Amino acid sequence: MCSSVIFDELRTFMENRDWVQFHSPENLAKSISIEAAELLECFQWSGQRTSDAEVVEELADVLTYCFLLADRLGADPEDIVRQKLVKTGEKYPVEKAKGRSSKYDRL
Amino acid sequence: MCSSVIFDELRTFMENRDWVQFHSPENLAKSISIEAAELLECFQWSGQRTSDAEVVEELADVLTYCFLLADRLGADPEDIVRQKLVKTGEKYPVEKAKGRSSKYDRL
Amino acid sequence: MCSSVIFDELRTFMENRDWVQFHSPENLAKSISIEAAELLECFQWSGQRTSDAEVVEELADVLTYCFLLADRLGADPEDIVRQKLVKTGEKYPVEKAKGRSSKYDRL
Amino acid sequence: MCSSVIFDELRTFMENRDWVQFHSPENLAKSISIEAAELLECFQWSGQRTSDAEVVEELADVLTYCFLLADRLGADPEDIVRQKLVKTGEKYPVEKAKGRSSKYDRL
Repeated sequence: MCSSVIFDELRTFMENRDWVQFHSPENLAKSISIEAAELLECFQWSGQRTSDAEVVEELADVLTYCFLLADRLGADPEDIVRQKLVKTGEKYPVEKAKGRSSKYDRL
Repeated sequence: MCSSVIFDELRTFMENRDWVQFHSPENLAKSISIEAAELLECFQWSGQRTSDAEVVEELADVLTYCFLLADRLGADPEDIVRQKLVKTGEKYPVEKAKGRSSKYDRL
Repeated sequence: MCSSVIFDELRTFMENRDWVQFHSPENLAKSISIEAAELLECFQWSGQRTSDAEVVEELADVLTYCFLLADRLGADPEDIVRQKLVKTGEKYPVEKAKGRSSKYDRL
Repeated sequence: MCSSVIFDELRTFMENRDWVQFHSPENLAKSISIEAAELLECFQWSGQRTSDAEVVEELADVLTYCFLLADRLGADPEDIVRQKLVKTGEKYPVEKAKGRSSKYDRL
């Protein structure tokens, strides 16, 4: 489990600004896509030099909206990542998937 | 801090499959965008009914790649979300931002 | 067919700036995602008021990279849209798809 | 100008299926992002081999939603690409931008 402290901090931050009204699951999903693209912009061109600090900051924006959506859906980020890992492990057994980036239906 | 357990689990999972070779920061950034769009697909059309369980599963995929990139960059998800929250708080002071979804340069 | 004039103009513009070197299909695909997210940002929050002129300008950025990728792959935008429409028509026959936004495998 | 034929074909296709009701500018913008990510998926992993035909088909999906949005906003794809090219030319004059992929504010 991620500590619950960060969720409390996020909630307080958003309530103080009366921003909870904007955070429907749909709006949060759009926001995750928008921030993911800003992260991708760090890698838009070959040979681009973006500092790790800039990448980390864009990643933080994606994670913030992910945490807000998780909180909204009553899900713990760490728990759901673990549960998905079990599913992925079944779709990609070690003996078939080792060293290959193919999709499971092309293994 | 998120517990370090999930990072150990993710690392073991990826090493077992020899997948670390595919996980350059750039490839992880692309993967985050790709999974973010699958999450967005749950909300593509008005009046669409996607179950919370499906949304949570797509969110888990985004988070998985976010955790892998954080690990790769030596960053703790919770710490960087907190640090960004401080920055955002400075750009959006309560008195100016309350109840408004405008960008900070239009407040 | 779209007129070939715009392709000539795009080529001249890029050659004058020696930018063709950056326009690998992969980099163009990333650029399309990045610009698509800037377009989406016009609709990030409920009740947001973005002018049509702003939306059109963001759409133009997406289209520019789409045209560059089409040109790179020797494809005519209008032709490939038409060819895909035929395929989509087969997956979504009028009698089954009428008035429904469901994916073809859930019709 | 792109020929108006494709727009007539798209309109007829959508009206036959009673799909125009789903095509608000916001829903089309989400759809463009979703399809852009499917295009990006062709380039997710290093050394991946996706055929040009697959790439073209994903590009066609992005273009389809772009054309629908352009039509909805009364804009001609070719015209708005040309108008944006003029603006971009002013932000990136040949002498400053030649051979560089930097953003205009870092040139």
